[in-house]
Order: sequence, then structure tokens, then C-alpha cells
Amino acid sequence: MEGNTNKERGGVEWRINMGDGTSRVLEAESRFGLQRFVSKVGGFFQRAWRLGVNEPKKLIHCVKVGLALSLVSLFYYMRPLYDGVGGNAMWAVMTVVVVFEYTVGATLCKCVNRATGTFLAGALGVGVHWVASQSGERFEPIILQLSVFLLATAATFSRFIPSIKARFDYGAMIFILTFSLISVSGYRVEKLFEMAHHRLSTIAIGTSICIITTIVFCPVWAGTELHNLIRNNMDKLSDSLDGCVADYFSTNSETSDKTWQGYKCALNSKATEESLANFARWEPAHDKFNFGHPWLEYVKVGASLRSCAYCIEALNGSMNSEAKVPDGLKQHFGNFCVRLSNASSGVMREVAVVMSSMKKPTRIDFMAEEMRNAVEELENALKSLSKQPILAAEGVTLVEVAPLVTVSSLLIEIAARTEKLAGAVNGVAEKAEFEVETAEEAKKGQSLKGGD
Amino acid sequence: MEGNTNKERGGVEWRINMGDGTSRVLEAESRFGLQRFVSKVGGFFQRAWRLGVNEPKKLIHCVKVGLALSLVSLFYYMRPLYDGVGGNAMWAVMTVVVVFEYTVGATLCKCVNRATGTFLAGALGVGVHWVASQSGERFEPIILQLSVFLLATAATFSRFIPSIKARFDYGAMIFILTFSLISVSGYRVEKLFEMAHHRLSTIAIGTSICIITTIVFCPVWAGTELHNLIRNNMDKLSDSLDGCVADYFSTNSETSDKTWQGYKCALNSKATEESLANFARWEPAHDKFNFGHPWLEYVKVGASLRSCAYCIEALNGSMNSEAKVPDGLKQHFGNFCVRLSNASSGVMREVAVVMSSMKKPTRIDFMAEEMRNAVEELENALKSLSKQPILAAEGVTLVEVAPLVTVSSLLIEIAARTEKLAGAVNGVAEKAEFEVETAEEAKKGQSLKGGD
Repeated sequence: MEGNTNKERGGVEWRINMGDGTSRVLEAESRFGLQRFVSKVGGFFQRAWRLGVNEPKKLIHCVKVGLALSLVSLFYYMRPLYDGVGGNAMWAVMTVVVVFEYTVGATLCKCVNRATGTFLAGALGVGVHWVASQSGERFEPIILQLSVFLLATAATFSRFIPSIKARFDYGAMIFILTFSLISVSGYRVEKLFEMAHHRLSTIAIGTSICIITTIVFCPVWAGTELHNLIRNNMDKLSDSLDGCVADYFSTNSETSDKTWQGYKCALNSKATEESLANFARWEPAHDKFNFGHPWLEYVKVGASLRSCAYCIEALNGSMNSEAKVPDGLKQHFGNFCVRLSNASSGVMREVAVVMSSMKKPTRIDFMAEEMRNAVEELENALKSLSKQPILAAEGVTLVEVAPLVTVSSLLIEIAARTEKLAGAVNGVAEKAEFEVETAEEAKKGQSLKGGD
Repeated sequence: MEGNTNKERGGVEWRINMGDGTSRVLEAESRFGLQRFVSKVGGFFQRAWRLGVNEPKKLIHCVKVGLALSLVSLFYYMRPLYDGVGGNAMWAVMTVVVVFEYTVGATLCKCVNRATGTFLAGALGVGVHWVASQSGERFEPIILQLSVFLLATAATFSRFIPSIKARFDYGAMIFILTFSLISVSGYRVEKLFEMAHHRLSTIAIGTSICIITTIVFCPVWAGTELHNLIRNNMDKLSDSLDGCVADYFSTNSETSDKTWQGYKCALNSKATEESLANFARWEPAHDKFNFGHPWLEYVKVGASLRSCAYCIEALNGSMNSEAKVPDGLKQHFGNFCVRLSNASSGVMREVAVVMSSMKKPTRIDFMAEEMRNAVEELENALKSLSKQPILAAEGVTLVEVAPLVTVSSLLIEIAARTEKLAGAVNGVAEKAEFEVETAEEAKKGQSLKGGD
């Protein structure tokens, strides 16, 4: 019997009797429901811990939220402050919770939206209220209801318009909220003025606490995040390109899969880039960036990066194809392909350096020229291949060289897209008025490149 | 003088005198500032109008928001209702404004989050309040402040954890908000219970008005939206594939650019798909979908679709390359390539039909087999090409056939990815337990296909 084997192993058996008279051994998994639950919760906390350790900025943000809330709650404990806002300190707490975001830009955006939305809706609400109160008891509720219905509909519609959604989505919501509250509140107009005053001052208190906390303690600037995101994506893309080409043409496959897959980050960062760019536009001068830095140009750079990433994805796919290329041909072509991929990834790296140093590009033209030469050489190699003895004599068919030809064409396409990327970065350099590199810096850059 | 020419043309000149003594003709653009402003505003409204006409669903949503707000504002006008919630009707209005979202799933998600967050934070807040009040006047504010700080930090951190962010982001925020408000409010515990009761009942009123309005009047289900999005992307992808291959191999270029570019929609829909899938999980049974429909499988289908789209992007790129392919070769290959692309796009269309009819796929295996045959034939054509007289005799070099080879390889890669897509759809069909097609329906489907 099986039970014996189990006992021989020294295990204790957990059996349950089934409805049909047989019994079933409980599996270890379901045996210790509690243990499994504990291990699941443990795993959750472990992952959370790792998240915190890997991204200390996020941990700091959490502490900042706690701090801002502690600050604003002082309004409850200090009598004069509490009375100053007529017992409406609640709105200040609410503002802090709702408005405090991860990046400075997002926080500023929400602050401005909240203040403006409340002010506009307040002014309009008082006006409508006055009109309604003048038109007699019978029409008053009708006018109020109708205005709420119409304005809520219109404001909700405005949230669907892309240009408004990008910058004033939250403001439109606050507008609806405030207007509805005022219109239906049924207060007299004088009372409304007092309320509006308190409401605005609590919002001012809440937003200033948020802005101070977010800027003073380890600020996370949306602009800097966008800048780093784009830079990192460039580096990942060049690493992927180098990695997969080297791996394909080399006999030993030592490159870890991870460097290869870096390009995938660039594939899906469109939404992040756009929202960061929108928030960055609200930010004052910080780090190396002035107010009015051309953040929208960064979105264009991101788009060019992505178009390179699509090609690298296809390259990866065609490299994994099963068709076997004769070794001699592979070696012959490997030189040209690796040279071209190195030239392209070199341009990407240089472009990344330009972005991070914010100096006018000086070497890119030269490197792009080099890349164009590499393209030409690869094309010449392709041209001469059909005359090569190996193809004619050894009976190598086109299907065997097909992967090589595809890889070459895709590399040529990647080179073309890399040039467009360089153009986009040039656009940033011009609009942001990057400084010209001094001779000394250029030398240093050159020697650094030599040391690579 | 230039001025003369202007006058001869009958134009009136608007000049401004510059600081340096010269004068400058004002351009027509800046001349009529007001006119320009009006035309800009007009353009804005025109675009808004078009948005509304093209997507009436969004317009209906706006009306629904207005309706829900009008409904909830009745609480202010009906005395018994107003007194029933202790004058806290404000919270009901607030709930409606904040919770009402475009899709049913998003609204339900926010409703559940708001109710749960408020309830949990309320219970915890009352508990902490009681502990603090028991520990003497000196420690009370310290305990309260500390608890706010710690819980706000922890809850904010939880919002960074992907699994929580996807489903409970809003709940965590409401938790922080309610807990802070309760802890610092300084009320006695009995008063708190009353407040909690009112708060919860206003939230219940607000959420039920939202849920009723959103479900009863022209509901927009996140699940259906996701389903249609994926379906449309499939159709667009197959159209793009057909369109660009036909365009490349045909001599007349009649296909409009627009059908080609459809694949771009699939490239950037990852974020939308994921959020829709998350919201769809909250939705009850609707349309053809049961509660617990495998929406997360749809995300996988979307990912396979995107991987096809990347390849089509690269295909488009390599088709635009300047290299000129000899016409004879192009025609010879065109047949095989068009056949393969038709087979692939056929599988995509069939897969789209399976998704929308929700019947077990019956013809896909057969069509995939056909696609595999087309791949084989194309490979054979490539194999035999090097033996073709045209290549040897006319001195066609490899660089001239390179675009053809690349297009072929990419088409083969697209076929491989289409098979994966079919596998992902099979996964949906199994998990959602699609019904088996009746013989009649199958016949109808066949005849419909024949009529294409």
C-alpha cells in the first residue's frame, strides 16, 4: 500500500474521506493553509521591502506625505490657527492628501488646478446664486438645478478634449465639485462669501504646505525624471543593439539575456514620457533646466527612440530564426554588421552624452558620417557577395543567407532611424540653447571615449 | 521700394516704427489679434464639436454626469432627506463628482474603494482615538500625530506596489484621507460614531446614485470596450499587412496611406488595455460576458498583437528603402509574399471573428496550416532563386534582392507571431469556455468567407 511507503518515509499522513467512500491524501500544499497564507504574506512584504530598497526615492516620498499631513494637522491643535479658518481645517487636510503627488510638477499642476478650479467655480457659483435669488422663489431651484446640469455636462465634456485633459483634467473636476456644492447649498450670498474666503484660505494653506514639503525635502522633479528616463532608454537601446549583434555573430554566447532585453523598456514608455513632459512644464528652474525648457521636444526624442526600438525588436526576432547560416559567410559578414551596429550604438551613446551634459553636439556629425560609411561598406559587402566564390561554388542558396541579409537590412534601417534620433536631439539642443563645448571639455570627452 | 509694390497690389500697409529708427510692415497674422483669437477659439469649438459627433458615447457620459448631480442635489431640496443625513449631504455630492467615471468598471472600482477605504480607516481611526484618549492628556496628541504619520507613510507606500496600485490605488488615498480627518478631528468617540454613520450613509447614497445612473442609461462597459479595442486592433493590423504588401508589390499605388497606418494604434495601446482589463474585472455579467470572464487573458492577446505590430512597423520601414528591385524578380516574389501575407491576415481576421462571436475556433487550425504552407512555398522560392537564370544571367547582385529577402523574412516572422496570437486567443477561448460552433453556424461562416 502507498500509505506504508509514506510511513516508512517517516511522514504523517493527512487523509480526508471523500463522498464516494474512498479517501484521499491531502497534499502538502493544501495541508497547511495557514502556513501557505503566512508565506504568501511574507512574500508580499519581501517584495515590498525590495521595492523600497531599490527605489529609496519612493520611500522618501512616503515619509514626505506623512510629514506634510503632520504639519497640516497642527492646524487642529493650535487654537488660533483653527479659529482663523472658521473650523474649516478639514479642507486643508483634504487638500494635502489629494494634491500631494510623487513629482514636483504633478503636485504643482494639481495645486494650480485646485486653486483655479475652486476660484472660477466659486465666482460663477455666487453669480448664478445671485441671479437665482433675484428671480423669485418659484424659479430659484429650477435655475440652480439647470445650471448645475449644464455646467457639469460641459465641464465633463471638456475633460475629453486632449489638450485640456493633459493639463487641466483635475481642475475641471474641482470646478464641477465646487460649483455643485455652492449652487445647491442654499446659503445666502453673504454667507457664501465667508465660506468662499475660508475655503480659499484653507486651500492656500494646504497647497503651500504641499509645495514647500515637496520642494524642500529631496524634491523629485518630473523634468529630471523624464531626462533620466530618456537617457537610460538610450543607453539600454545601445546596449541591446551591441549585445544582440555581438551574440549573434560570436560563437560563444556569454552575453546575459538581460542586457539584450533592455530595449523593451523603451517600447512601452510612451505614456510615462508624455505625462512627465506635461508635468515638467509646470516646474520652475531646477538642476540644469530653466523654466520653459523644451520638454515637449523630449517627447519627440522618445518617439524616435521607440522607432529604433521597434526595429531592434524585429532584429531580435529574425536572429532567433531557425535557418542556419554557413559559418564562413557569417564570419565574413559579422565584421561589417558588428561595425555598423557599433557605429549606430556609438551615435546613440554620444546622443545620450549630449543630452546629459547639455552641451552642443560636436562629435555627432562626425560619428554619423562614420555610421554612413559603415552602411556603405555593408552594402558593398552585400553587392559583392553574389560574386563571391563561396556562394557559387558551395551551392549556398538564398534561403541560407536570408537571415544575414535580413539582419543587414534591419541594421541599415536602424542606422537610418538613429540619424533621425540624432536630428531630434539636435532639435532639443537648439530649442534649449545648449552651450558650446569648450575645447578642454571636448578633449576630456575624447580621452574618455578613448578609455572606453 | 517694397512699399510701392504693396500699394500697387491694393493692400493697406500697417507699419510700426522700431526703436532703431527703421519701420517694419506688420504681417497679416499679427495684424488682427482679435480676429486670430476668435478663429482660434472657433477652431477649438469646431474640434470639440467633431469629438462629440464622432464619439456620441462620450457626449452621453457627460449628460449622465449632469443627471447624477441633479439627482443627488435633490437631497438639498427635500427636507426629510437632508435631515436624515445630518446636514452632511455635501459628502454625497462630493462622492458623485469624484466617483463617476466613464466606464461602469471604473465607477464600480472607485465606489468599492471609497466605501472600503472609508470604513477601514473609520474603524481604525476610532480605535486609535480611543487608545489615545485612554492614555492621558499628555500622550494623546503624540499618539494621534504619530499614528497619522505612520499610517499615511505606509498607505502611500502601498500605492507604489503594482498589484495594489492596479486595483486599490484610490482606496488607499481615501484611507489616508479619512484616517487623518478622524484622528485629528478632536471629537469625542461618541460624536465620532455619529459622524461615521452619516459619512457612510452619504457615501452609500452617492455611490448608489452613480451605479444606478451608469448602469441604467447607456452603460459603457470596460469589458466591452476592451473587447472592441482588441478586435479593432486585429482588423487594423490585418488591413495594414494586406495594404502595405499589396502596395509594395503592385505597380499602381492606390491604397490610401490611412489603411496602412492602422497598425500604429496597436503599438501604443498597452496602457489602455491594462487599465480596461483591471476595470473589467469589477464588472458584473453583461453583454455576452459572464462575471469572472478571463479579462487578463485579453491583455496577453493584446501583447501578441503588439509583437505582430512591431514586425509590421519594421516591414513598413524596409519597404520604404531606396534600393530598387528588378521588376521581374519583384513580380516573381510578389505572388508568394502576397499569398503569405493574405494567409497571415486571414488568420488575424479569423481570430478576430472568434473573439467577437465567442465560438470555439474551428477553422483557425486549418488556416494556420495554410499559412505554414505559404511560408514553406516562400522559403522554397528563396531557395530556388539562387539557381534562377535571372540572378545568374542578368548579373543581379544580392544588394538588389536584399529588400525582397528582408520583406520575405519579416513576413515569415509575422506568420510565426500570428501563430502565437492564435495561441493566445485559444487561451481566451478555453478559459472563457467558448461554445462550440453549430454545424449551421459553421456553414454560414464558410459561405460568408466565400462571399468575401
